[in-house]
Amino acid sequence: MQQTFRLIIDCPDQIGLVAAVSEFLAQQQATILEANHHSDRQLGRFFMRHEIMADTVNLDKQALEQAFAPIAERFNMRWRITDSLQKQRVALLASHESHCLNDLLHRWHSGELACDIPCIIANHPQMKQFADWYKVPFHWVDFKNQDKTAAFKEIATLLEAYNIDLTVLARFMQILPDTLCEQLAGRAINIHHSFLPSFAGAKPYQQAYERGVKLIGATCHYVTQDLDEGPIIEQEVIRISHSDTAADMVRKGKNCETTALAAGVRYHLEDRVIIHQNKTVVFA
Amino acid sequence: MQQTFRLIIDCPDQIGLVAAVSEFLAQQQATILEANHHSDRQLGRFFMRHEIMADTVNLDKQALEQAFAPIAERFNMRWRITDSLQKQRVALLASHESHCLNDLLHRWHSGELACDIPCIIANHPQMKQFADWYKVPFHWVDFKNQDKTAAFKEIATLLEAYNIDLTVLARFMQILPDTLCEQLAGRAINIHHSFLPSFAGAKPYQQAYERGVKLIGATCHYVTQDLDEGPIIEQEVIRISHSDTAADMVRKGKNCETTALAAGVRYHLEDRVIIHQNKTVVFA
Amino acid sequence: MQQTFRLIIDCPDQIGLVAAVSEFLAQQQATILEANHHSDRQLGRFFMRHEIMADTVNLDKQALEQAFAPIAERFNMRWRITDSLQKQRVALLASHESHCLNDLLHRWHSGELACDIPCIIANHPQMKQFADWYKVPFHWVDFKNQDKTAAFKEIATLLEAYNIDLTVLARFMQILPDTLCEQLAGRAINIHHSFLPSFAGAKPYQQAYERGVKLIGATCHYVTQDLDEGPIIEQEVIRISHSDTAADMVRKGKNCETTALAAGVRYHLEDRVIIHQNKTVVFA
Amino acid sequence: MQQTFRLIIDCPDQIGLVAAVSEFLAQQQATILEANHHSDRQLGRFFMRHEIMADTVNLDKQALEQAFAPIAERFNMRWRITDSLQKQRVALLASHESHCLNDLLHRWHSGELACDIPCIIANHPQMKQFADWYKVPFHWVDFKNQDKTAAFKEIATLLEAYNIDLTVLARFMQILPDTLCEQLAGRAINIHHSFLPSFAGAKPYQQAYERGVKLIGATCHYVTQDLDEGPIIEQEVIRISHSDTAADMVRKGKNCETTALAAGVRYHLEDRVIIHQNKTVVFA
Repeated sequence: MQQTFRLIIDCPDQIGLVAAVSEFLAQQQATILEANHHSDRQLGRFFMRHEIMADTVNLDKQALEQAFAPIAERFNMRWRITDSLQKQRVALLASHESHCLNDLLHRWHSGELACDIPCIIANHPQMKQFADWYKVPFHWVDFKNQDKTAAFKEIATLLEAYNIDLTVLARFMQILPDTLCEQLAGRAINIHHSFLPSFAGAKPYQQAYERGVKLIGATCHYVTQDLDEGPIIEQEVIRISHSDTAADMVRKGKNCETTALAAGVRYHLEDRVIIHQNKTVVFA
Repeated sequence: MQQTFRLIIDCPDQIGLVAAVSEFLAQQQATILEANHHSDRQLGRFFMRHEIMADTVNLDKQALEQAFAPIAERFNMRWRITDSLQKQRVALLASHESHCLNDLLHRWHSGELACDIPCIIANHPQMKQFADWYKVPFHWVDFKNQDKTAAFKEIATLLEAYNIDLTVLARFMQILPDTLCEQLAGRAINIHHSFLPSFAGAKPYQQAYERGVKLIGATCHYVTQDLDEGPIIEQEVIRISHSDTAADMVRKGKNCETTALAAGVRYHLEDRVIIHQNKTVVFA
Repeated sequence: MQQTFRLIIDCPDQIGLVAAVSEFLAQQQATILEANHHSDRQLGRFFMRHEIMADTVNLDKQALEQAFAPIAERFNMRWRITDSLQKQRVALLASHESHCLNDLLHRWHSGELACDIPCIIANHPQMKQFADWYKVPFHWVDFKNQDKTAAFKEIATLLEAYNIDLTVLARFMQILPDTLCEQLAGRAINIHHSFLPSFAGAKPYQQAYERGVKLIGATCHYVTQDLDEGPIIEQEVIRISHSDTAADMVRKGKNCETTALAAGVRYHLEDRVIIHQNKTVVFA
Repeated sequence: MQQTFRLIIDCPDQIGLVAAVSEFLAQQQATILEANHHSDRQLGRFFMRHEIMADTVNLDKQALEQAFAPIAERFNMRWRITDSLQKQRVALLASHESHCLNDLLHRWHSGELACDIPCIIANHPQMKQFADWYKVPFHWVDFKNQDKTAAFKEIATLLEAYNIDLTVLARFMQILPDTLCEQLAGRAINIHHSFLPSFAGAKPYQQAYERGVKLIGATCHYVTQDLDEGPIIEQEVIRISHSDTAADMVRKGKNCETTALAAGVRYHLEDRVIIHQNKTVVFA
């Protein structure tokens, strides 16, 4: 995989902003692989992502950051430069449903998700078999024989010990405590098995059955203290009919869940998502 | 168009039920064009629709009803037989948005919707031009210079005078009073511009913008006293992104609205929908 | 509607290109509403569209063109600047199927398609009623009592007399002669009722029925001398099953046709499409 | 899982047919879980599937078959009764792409696909790791150091030795010889990575890139001697744009491939597919 640098920016919209950034990149002789802009007229805010070939610039990442800093300051930017070769460290949190876990692990293993997965944490021991096959350390956190505070403290300790950049709740069926949500703000992704805001909370398929909707879906979003209310990254839906039983809905929904979660995680890992307030700009 | 009879049944699920109905149809020498069954195991209820070629049976509709009545009684059926040539009389209620009105009128005019449209009722006078072109009587009901009770009384009187079978709210932006909802139960169809239950109530696109969803949609449902809570017939969604402005969402949403409403109305006119409790079985 | 200028560019990919363009726009004090870039690495070609608020720059369109010309020359650009208030003149060509004609006219009438429609040309007289209602001059070209060469000469004359910018074949069922294709290159849009390249040529729904596909669709593309082989702008598909008759497929397909054609025409009118070789870049 | 019997029928359409079948089922006191009918008016052929609860009838499968045989003969039926507990034996054929293999194995392991998988056969040794984890015997057939005839003879021998009911080509990149196609007629399912009939043959994504289509897809079909021309069971598509590189298309296409193949295999295993001529009726 070729090395790229990604320059991610958001700031108040101003004239001269794009010119300054592209002038800077041209001066570095950067070959631009992908450039995306978005101007939110309602907010007066500008969002921008550049992906450039690292070997076309003469500076390393740190020097590039130093060179760019004055521009960032001038335009009051929230910004970062990332290096595609510095893989993020991702922890997968799972419970007893294995479809998302299996799907993410396979995509990672086949190179679709460019990250490291230093650990899997689960509240059910049987997920260990997946971890073992992929040779990923597995941690079973017991949610039955200790209280939740203790269990989540275990998890927080693990995330810190493994130096985790991104926590993915791959159908992890426990609600994260507020302190952990805060700590992981913008760095924890969940998959909810409905097209939010419909059927938030528990048992969305049962809710969908009862309401008689003709579509079910899944929502990949950042975890926040407000349950199922975090910034949405991706959503998928699928058509159902009266003839779909609860079991059919679960089966069909799983396809939505795996697809939406995998897409959301990939967007995050490739620095394609910018969170602003409670929404996302996704340069897909 | 060839004449068909449609036999629509729902009843408690019982052994021998299908045999009795199909034996009856075979005795009449009926050629079955389409047969649909659905057994809701959770409710223990059976739903069935047959469409048969009228000229293959020796009885007319009334005689057929008489012949079938004993079977219906034996199995405690809710049932009806309809004749495809006896077109339903449909009233279109509109406001100032013309896309659904235009779409339904065109589908009707081109023969896709087999019904009569004896009148259009609107709370904005400019819809008259559509009515005129299609040579449909137009009634402007003034919602500004009289109170709503009076306005809705006018509407109710018109629906009765025209002997209306089905009332379609084609983006009619007034909330029907409870008495009218009751009167039209199962015979009034609305289009809501969101994928319900998300964003019920007013301004769903603004709600969608604020929540940052990645999909918008439309829901075609029967009108009930509980606003936006009636049995859903059809739903459509379309993908959006951060780059879609409010205007883009309205434009994209309109495609969902016209498609979902036209489908829902067609299903109803072809007797493909069976309402049970607050849900529908749609033999699409 | 606010006035905007659109700057559309494609050229060999080069470092400094984006910087030069955005520097130029910043110098004009242009407020950028929308900016889109695409670099085709395989072709080494760059595509770019800017939409700017006209009243934020001090120059009129002509002066802006003069000011930009040296940059265009330096980077060997194929380029143009368009003014959103200078509406394109669109001719609709129709036959006996009215769904696309009705749909485009309604979108135009309701302001969704920003263009002028100075004429409708059809080979069936009954489309006149649509033209009349929308107060658009209607020309019936007789394809039965004269040979095709003469008929197409009539059409070419009309297109020239009306000073047409874009010709839309809204289910116009005649094959344009090569000379007309050449003349209208990049300025004539067709809708084909299949997801090309599947089922090119005549009777795509019959072909789809015979092959037993589970999806049907429609393709909006530029007209070229190679029938059904021109650059694709937009495609839509819809799921079908064994239970869909030929008539069902036609009905479902029509929804795809109207949606794909309306989208394609809008993209063209808003200068969102750049044709390169036999493909399109669409900044949707 | 509860035991069910499935009665699958196709025959010339005749009056009295449904009555005879449902009368028979009622006499057996069968509780019908699901019933599907399809009458192809163009062919004059009738297709039917019943799924009944085994413990509600007093006969075992063999006795049921004997009791039904006279009816089948009377109506000249092609028919079979299957027992949901007699799982089909499925062989997975794979090459070096693991996404379909991984997906099918996981669905099987988690109970979504009710079958036995007695062996995996591949022309690349590295798939062994998947087989090992799932504890499925793995056979590497060498296509490099022996000629194809010998290699396919090995495969045919394995399929026979394992007493295989269904052979699934999970991105197995070798073309089956005619004799094997014949032998496995109606019992071998392939996944092709395009929405057939578009881009049949090799490198469909490259073909799609060159043609500039706006949708890519996948097709699950029965294997026949006419390459990529067999009866289609399921198709999936996904939207692409000019910005999708070949790698993006491969990634997006994989989601279509896994979904379509898994659905097609499930339909087959649940006896939901009836092949007639070169098409399928799928009671999904």
